[in-house]
Amino acid sequence: MGINLTNFLSSKSKNKKMKEFQDLDHIDGVSISSISANLYNTQRDDLVMFYFRDGANHASVYTQSKIISENIKLNLNKKVKKIFSLLINTRNANCFTGKLGYKSLEKIAEITAEKLSDKQKIDEDHPKKIKSKEIIFGCTGTIGEIFPEEKIKSKIPDLINQLKYTQNKYIWMKAALGIMTTDTQPKMAMEECLIGSSEIKIFGIAKGSGMIQPNMATTLAYIFTDADLPNDILKKLLKKNLASTFNAITCDGDTSTNDMISIFSTGKKRHAKIKNINDEKIKNFDESLNKVLLNLAKRVVADGEGASKFITINVCNCKKETEAKKIAFSIANSSLVKTAIAGEDPNWGRIIMAIGKSNVPIKIDRLVIKFGNLIIIHNGKLSINYDEQEVSEYMKKTDIDITVDISNGSKNFTAYTMDLTKKYIEINADYRS
Amino acid sequence: MGINLTNFLSSKSKNKKMKEFQDLDHIDGVSISSISANLYNTQRDDLVMFYFRDGANHASVYTQSKIISENIKLNLNKKVKKIFSLLINTRNANCFTGKLGYKSLEKIAEITAEKLSDKQKIDEDHPKKIKSKEIIFGCTGTIGEIFPEEKIKSKIPDLINQLKYTQNKYIWMKAALGIMTTDTQPKMAMEECLIGSSEIKIFGIAKGSGMIQPNMATTLAYIFTDADLPNDILKKLLKKNLASTFNAITCDGDTSTNDMISIFSTGKKRHAKIKNINDEKIKNFDESLNKVLLNLAKRVVADGEGASKFITINVCNCKKETEAKKIAFSIANSSLVKTAIAGEDPNWGRIIMAIGKSNVPIKIDRLVIKFGNLIIIHNGKLSINYDEQEVSEYMKKTDIDITVDISNGSKNFTAYTMDLTKKYIEINADYRS
Repeated sequence: MGINLTNFLSSKSKNKKMKEFQDLDHIDGVSISSISANLYNTQRDDLVMFYFRDGANHASVYTQSKIISENIKLNLNKKVKKIFSLLINTRNANCFTGKLGYKSLEKIAEITAEKLSDKQKIDEDHPKKIKSKEIIFGCTGTIGEIFPEEKIKSKIPDLINQLKYTQNKYIWMKAALGIMTTDTQPKMAMEECLIGSSEIKIFGIAKGSGMIQPNMATTLAYIFTDADLPNDILKKLLKKNLASTFNAITCDGDTSTNDMISIFSTGKKRHAKIKNINDEKIKNFDESLNKVLLNLAKRVVADGEGASKFITINVCNCKKETEAKKIAFSIANSSLVKTAIAGEDPNWGRIIMAIGKSNVPIKIDRLVIKFGNLIIIHNGKLSINYDEQEVSEYMKKTDIDITVDISNGSKNFTAYTMDLTKKYIEINADYRS
Repeated sequence: MGINLTNFLSSKSKNKKMKEFQDLDHIDGVSISSISANLYNTQRDDLVMFYFRDGANHASVYTQSKIISENIKLNLNKKVKKIFSLLINTRNANCFTGKLGYKSLEKIAEITAEKLSDKQKIDEDHPKKIKSKEIIFGCTGTIGEIFPEEKIKSKIPDLINQLKYTQNKYIWMKAALGIMTTDTQPKMAMEECLIGSSEIKIFGIAKGSGMIQPNMATTLAYIFTDADLPNDILKKLLKKNLASTFNAITCDGDTSTNDMISIFSTGKKRHAKIKNINDEKIKNFDESLNKVLLNLAKRVVADGEGASKFITINVCNCKKETEAKKIAFSIANSSLVKTAIAGEDPNWGRIIMAIGKSNVPIKIDRLVIKFGNLIIIHNGKLSINYDEQEVSEYMKKTDIDITVDISNGSKNFTAYTMDLTKKYIEINADYRS
């Protein structure tokens, strides 16, 4: 059932009615609908539409893989100032589908633009003719299968009919559920912050089961704010904050062809104009965006179906941040470390091994390793206070914190991962059969 | 019980009396003994001595880890022309043992040199006084435990007493068993070849369970030949042939602090003098050394306790060999690929994913992927002959061959790995408890 997430709820959040989920309510300028296009041949929702009636500024970051899906190719070809809709389907990744897959999306974009333009004529005083290039796509699912163009196209009118002016927590939850593939839990997060004296909302939903799931478990994350920020500022803020959030999580080191993280800014809240990201007035927004992204990223790690433990790896006091990151990921990606933690075995020798193979030069006689607050290695030697019994007790916890202090500088990096269990193999070995 | 290894036996070998093992007999200039120093508190052999009565030229290659064991530090500090003994212990890696661990080895080297010098006085017409620096060490086992200096020292006289002038297959087998840690099978290999018109033997033993085992499963491999080759030629031949053998295997990407691969040349066979490795006369030796190393390396992969399949990944026709290697290891180290193979699932989408994340630029419309002889992807599209039933049948085999043809150059690389099973997790999660 995954790991209890109560700890991830931001301390600043005002909405804790549900135990594990914050309540996302309404963000002005955003409408949402979810539907089943029967892509799974079940009744589950598999198609989600976000509609920005006055358009939204936006920025997206995509997978680093050299093989990318057709929807990402299409999105990358769009040079528009504002986006009017984000359409997400599950079940089919539209990857390795060639020109046919690309053209399918073009056709879906056309019909969506046409129907949304019709909606504008009914709803708006100054209706806008929405262009197909003002629509972007998120796809996730199986690779190499023909994209279900007809099934999706036929549901566009229903999707648009269901769009409501005001959103509530159920609508957000339904959307978060609608973009899931093998996730066991929907992923939502929110923060409220100030830009100058204006109260701003940042909401987000995500899917992904820690890249540990079948078919690569694409990570999709979509952030929505009523702030009024230009595209270049959004891009800089998104990139900056991904480094310590979605780019700090790892499960098995595998990378999807479809990863996509986007931010949309509807501009419905008036606030002081922000021209660069060093502006003091954007600091609170910046921190809150980081919290939303980190909250979602942690939920992705924690939802690895095989995961029984959530692992935080803090690497401190390196010369360079890149070195801290190398060591953190060397530990976080080590199957031997992750299986030891699954077995609740305080096998610190494997941490030593993972530090060694990271290829970062270290001074052993300065090395400190801690599990939680328990010092294991001090100045490169087994601590005189080391008590195997005490450490074994610690390993029984669900949240395991490992600290590696290199004492050779001032740069830090924190990585998040989960343990490697038999359940992981079960899920991944038995997937398609 | 691991994978049947009959296929690995060299076609050229003349000795196939045992089903899975070649018979290693005598190599002139090499004496071997194995004993229990009770390091495991059982009666198993845990201490193995190789003695070269007239010394041996030698070359060694060690782990790339930034944290290395004390025996490797000691070996690296030795600048001698000839080695008189190689002493290997299991159970204790002598890593993270600090100066104390280093000094223990110095003391063991001293007593060994003294006792071997005494033996020389009895056996040889022109006895040599063996120096402690002419002895090197291989250690494998647990990290961070005090090195059992006394237990080992006390057994040196017995070890030396048991040395016999002539070796046979049982003595080699006993040595191969004596260096095992979590291995389930001893690892031996041999080839016979020619240098000029002289018949030369190359024997080898190894330990290691594919780096997948508890405590990092150090790889140790020791090669012995009666050829007369200088140290620099040995070094070049060893390095050159490791690239396609021990450096082409991977199990979970973890690296030991204690890896050590050495070659010893006793010079007992007269042959044409070899001054550089491009000499035509060394070609047959070079190829045979590769066979011995590849045979041992494959045995290491196949002995992963969790392994149920042996996987060969051929990446062909890249621009650079480094690119072919990157793609091969990206596939070989992917948990998603390895679990799919464990589940006998022809999930080629995961191969695509692993190619994509390797960061090598490829032209998709030239890509060919084969499982065995079955073409899956042809010119970047699912092959028109693709038959899921047929491919599923293929996946049931024990030896799985995956070929990825990039069609963008002429460079190739082959990597070897095994599947990732529940058994792996069981072994590694439950190790110390």
